[in-house]
Amino acid sequence: MKKKYLMTPGPTPVLNEALTAMAEPIIHHRHPEFQGILEEVREGLKEMFQTKEEVLLLASSGTGAMEGSVVNTLKKGDRVVVVRGGKFGERWTEICEAYGIEVDNIDVPWGQAVDPADVKKKLEKPAQAVMVQFTETSTGVTHPVKELAKLTQGTETLLFVDGITGVGVTSIPFDEWGIDVLVTGSQKALMLPPGLAFACLSEKAWKAAENSDLPRFYFDFKKEHKKIKENSTNYTPAITLIIGMREVLRKCREVGFDTIYKENAAMARATRAAATALGLELFAPDSPSDALTAIKAPAGVDGQQVVKVMRDEMGIAIAGGQAEAKGKIFRIAHMGFISKWDLLSTIGALEKTLAKLGHSFTPGAGTSALIAELDI
Amino acid sequence: MKKKYLMTPGPTPVLNEALTAMAEPIIHHRHPEFQGILEEVREGLKEMFQTKEEVLLLASSGTGAMEGSVVNTLKKGDRVVVVRGGKFGERWTEICEAYGIEVDNIDVPWGQAVDPADVKKKLEKPAQAVMVQFTETSTGVTHPVKELAKLTQGTETLLFVDGITGVGVTSIPFDEWGIDVLVTGSQKALMLPPGLAFACLSEKAWKAAENSDLPRFYFDFKKEHKKIKENSTNYTPAITLIIGMREVLRKCREVGFDTIYKENAAMARATRAAATALGLELFAPDSPSDALTAIKAPAGVDGQQVVKVMRDEMGIAIAGGQAEAKGKIFRIAHMGFISKWDLLSTIGALEKTLAKLGHSFTPGAGTSALIAELDI
Repeated sequence: MKKKYLMTPGPTPVLNEALTAMAEPIIHHRHPEFQGILEEVREGLKEMFQTKEEVLLLASSGTGAMEGSVVNTLKKGDRVVVVRGGKFGERWTEICEAYGIEVDNIDVPWGQAVDPADVKKKLEKPAQAVMVQFTETSTGVTHPVKELAKLTQGTETLLFVDGITGVGVTSIPFDEWGIDVLVTGSQKALMLPPGLAFACLSEKAWKAAENSDLPRFYFDFKKEHKKIKENSTNYTPAITLIIGMREVLRKCREVGFDTIYKENAAMARATRAAATALGLELFAPDSPSDALTAIKAPAGVDGQQVVKVMRDEMGIAIAGGQAEAKGKIFRIAHMGFISKWDLLSTIGALEKTLAKLGHSFTPGAGTSALIAELDI
Repeated sequence: MKKKYLMTPGPTPVLNEALTAMAEPIIHHRHPEFQGILEEVREGLKEMFQTKEEVLLLASSGTGAMEGSVVNTLKKGDRVVVVRGGKFGERWTEICEAYGIEVDNIDVPWGQAVDPADVKKKLEKPAQAVMVQFTETSTGVTHPVKELAKLTQGTETLLFVDGITGVGVTSIPFDEWGIDVLVTGSQKALMLPPGLAFACLSEKAWKAAENSDLPRFYFDFKKEHKKIKENSTNYTPAITLIIGMREVLRKCREVGFDTIYKENAAMARATRAAATALGLELFAPDSPSDALTAIKAPAGVDGQQVVKVMRDEMGIAIAGGQAEAKGKIFRIAHMGFISKWDLLSTIGALEKTLAKLGHSFTPGAGTSALIAELDI
């Protein structure tokens, strides 16, 4: 009878209304009923992405949308600048290298955001694209996308933003900032199971797509763009996830995107306050994300052990560190269908866990700081 | 209060146990609980594919697995022979052409199966692969895969089989027949929503993968092969669909695959008998599929109209013809979570529909023939 809580930065808990809608008998994707759903989802996505452009829907994880962005807009031998400050920054590099794109990496220390001046310097040499994460999920850092867009707007260079942990968490005005490619996935702020990915391209990116010479088939954006305008897709879509997405968008519009963004930011601030009150250090103190908080394991405590005790003894799933951060940090999500009360439970369990693992702190300091900061 | 029935060849109705399992709160894909599920699914898939090889799981529609098969085993400039006898045969050609593979098409008239002698003739010139559908869903034809495997086994040529409408419908012994690549998708015989694809490669195909030089990232089979053996995946998997797949495999093993194959074959025979008794012609009389039956619209009746009246007035979704068969045929599925009673309802509704559209027949002839043939 141990009740379980999911506080990981992907997947996040699925919205109740989406769970029940997805458990309805399936319908056919070429029938009018589904076309109506797709039309409603298209409109909602434009609001979420803050754009006049179409948002493409792909049956894949977010990585598929990242690859699709590369193979539909670039040419073999193009030079791109990649902000590499974590596991997902590395992914842009790996995708580009798989297709013969010349990658100029900016290696940002894990836990830090890129300095726009470093990107500006790299752009003294012509580059077809700058690629970055909105939030680097492996470190909890938010990169200064708005500032980077100022560097690429009005130039030939495209700005690619992996918003897998970003869209729906924080306001990312695609048109206003001048982003060229923004992708996301279903299993984070969008409160759905994984398996549905989204990609939005600017007019500039669509123009670049005319000259792209990289091979592609399943992730052919021009073909999908044509179809989505007819409320259809080229290949069998992830029907149930799109039906769930309608529920998510209805809920987001009912609550209001601005309210959601404010609540995420407040939960993030409160989590940081709680960690600090427990004598813990933040892994990304200078440019932290509103989606998740990465916290350094205290001296003498293995971060993986924190995750294990939280999961196995407390019933609360949080995430550990990946690659070079493994064992050094743990990560708590506060986006999507996660409430401040879930966070309070998590901080309470974290106190129990840290006490058990030998870290010294004032009992109740974490939960008190959270409550104070949230003004619960 | 109109009750709806889904009798289309993809998606098909979702298994009840899978629907409820997928409506449970989501779990994390890197946790032991999910790894245990993946392990059970891996074992069940080996039984379903009748192989000792691993079956890869991809978060995509079946087309993604088709593309992955091509880009992981072929080289630029390779020559392949494609059996093109419908919409899905065309897909192999389109994928290969997107990657600079030289395609030698065998254009089989829609509604007919390929003659193995024609493939044999094409193989007088060296070819890296022969590509075919097990069932060509657009025409309801089953191609002679066993015979084709005899042509490629022991040679350098790989046999690619699109089993999207095949695996789980009919016995396809991968190892015994000597198939080299077999792919399928979740939304047909596997009784799940779309969004999960499967690919199985023979030792010969894995050897070819060593020399493949085509670019790929999301559909990198060697990387996935390594991960699946650790009960993991490279990118976020379609968690809920894999959880549903466990239920499907449990049900299939409980019922027995052989029983399922026999029932599908019996339902297919009965559907053909019913159509004939209604004075209708079969579109694929010589090599019909056990997954679906394609029936010609009677003279003076538009096939699309049959589909529309069935759906809008009877509440039963069947499929029309695609591309060159549009308006000329309609298609009824009998695979997955579809029972003989659903078929009886469908034939009953078809009689009402045909009568309304002006086709003459003996009322009750279709349902009587179905009942007699099924020995209900």
